Amino acid sequence: MEVVHSIADLRSRIREYRRKNDGSVGFVPTMGYLHEGHASLLRKARSQSGLVVLSIFVNPLQFGPGEDFERYPRNTERDLEVAEAAGADLVFMPSVSEMYPAPTRTTVSVTGLTSNLCGASRPGHFDGVATVVSKLFHIVQPDQAFFGLKDAQQVAVIEQMVQDLNLAVEIVPCPTLREKDGLAMSSRNVYLTEEERKQALVLSQSLELAKEFVRGRSSFTAGELESLVRSHIATAPLAVIDYAEVLAYPALETFESSTHTDSVIIALAVKFGKTRLIDNAIIQLRK
Amino acid sequence: MEVVHSIADLRSRIREYRRKNDGSVGFVPTMGYLHEGHASLLRKARSQSGLVVLSIFVNPLQFGPGEDFERYPRNTERDLEVAEAAGADLVFMPSVSEMYPAPTRTTVSVTGLTSNLCGASRPGHFDGVATVVSKLFHIVQPDQAFFGLKDAQQVAVIEQMVQDLNLAVEIVPCPTLREKDGLAMSSRNVYLTEEERKQALVLSQSLELAKEFVRGRSSFTAGELESLVRSHIATAPLAVIDYAEVLAYPALETFESSTHTDSVIIALAVKFGKTRLIDNAIIQLRK
Repeated sequence: MEVVHSIADLRSRIREYRRKNDGSVGFVPTMGYLHEGHASLLRKARSQSGLVVLSIFVNPLQFGPGEDFERYPRNTERDLEVAEAAGADLVFMPSVSEMYPAPTRTTVSVTGLTSNLCGASRPGHFDGVATVVSKLFHIVQPDQAFFGLKDAQQVAVIEQMVQDLNLAVEIVPCPTLREKDGLAMSSRNVYLTEEERKQALVLSQSLELAKEFVRGRSSFTAGELESLVRSHIATAPLAVIDYAEVLAYPALETFESSTHTDSVIIALAVKFGKTRLIDNAIIQLRK
Repeated sequence: MEVVHSIADLRSRIREYRRKNDGSVGFVPTMGYLHEGHASLLRKARSQSGLVVLSIFVNPLQFGPGEDFERYPRNTERDLEVAEAAGADLVFMPSVSEMYPAPTRTTVSVTGLTSNLCGASRPGHFDGVATVVSKLFHIVQPDQAFFGLKDAQQVAVIEQMVQDLNLAVEIVPCPTLREKDGLAMSSRNVYLTEEERKQALVLSQSLELAKEFVRGRSSFTAGELESLVRSHIATAPLAVIDYAEVLAYPALETFESSTHTDSVIIALAVKFGKTRLIDNAIIQLRK
């Protein structure tokens, strides 16, 4: 495994690989502080791609004022161990000035999918995501890119961008990984106090309750499902709901009755103290 | 020379070329109705690139309401003759539905450079340009792309986008070609009546006057140069000035005294009847 810091070095390594090999280039973009979820993306890439490229870059553009850009957890040494064990070949760790040598004047924006959920509570967030992912795709020029479905809205935004801008990359969405007790893995879990960590289980529990509810019914309304989820989250005194929404998937649009959609997503963002956790479940209702 | 209409066909031809050859791919994006200016871009590409790709696509996204999208001149048969004579290998002529199978939700925007000149008088125009050029770059994946400097602001916007988004393409700006009497070549010249065509010479003439003025002086103000140009254009009774601005180049920012900038652009947009013509001169003041 090789670690490079400059765009020029990364490009030259990938060019060299492409010249000598017919295999594809798989790409896993991350903000570091890698956990088992990231490792699962790397293993998926390892199984599908000839060259596995990992990027570690905490992108200032996707953090709003007052968000946790400065204190976002970093641990390069451990990240490199996880990356190597999971099969990464090439790690790209650019500085902020390598990625943004001057303030960027160019923005990639995706409308429609970004007006609700995290788009509503984090204005500008998805412009920052779309812009940096577009930059990384241009730098790496991967054949496949692997994203975790914990950030389901991010996956939808990136798939829309790839389709609209004719990017020559296949997006491979990968399932959310969870701790044994159900908590979705996240770099931000490290912020939680012991008590917050316990109460945070209401997220995954409420999603399980929702799945059970859906299994037992031939049809239901978005409102019914949302109430169920919200009342379970309310059982945790420390939980402050940012959003808890039931939408048609992948359009991320509201619906009345489940008879009008083939697939739904229950998407949650809940704060415990300063820590904002997200989780979701995508339920296919019919083929 | 081969003509293709689908993105899939174009990609497969270029992939095949790259597999068999070490030469570079040169790209000339156009809206068709080719004139000698476009031919000069193709010849430049021919001299630098192994495979010369031309696109012909009148992009609805960069036309505003009431602009000339519907009546923009088209002549495929002659375009293909010009393209072949100038050395194109591959012509990409997609339909609107091939380029936009669904309404695009993704926009590429460049700020700063687009607030004045054509950006001010054609709101949304440069978003449309940046978005379609980004799509075409993703489809063709050229090593070099050739643009005429008649659209100097367009070149500046595209260079900024390429830099900000790390697109792996070299932008090659090429000089404006002119008719014998000085009129800048443009597909829109065909709209002009005989009388308008005569009076349209004030554009290139005023630029020549400006160059002469600059040559004779150690310093000057933007205002002096602008007045000179405006008063010459005013000698044409049919001319209606959209803008006539003197800006620092390539920043496209205003300046007071010429001692503060190394290079200036005199940029003109003038209407004759319904026809809007643009022209410009870039003058280097010092190395």
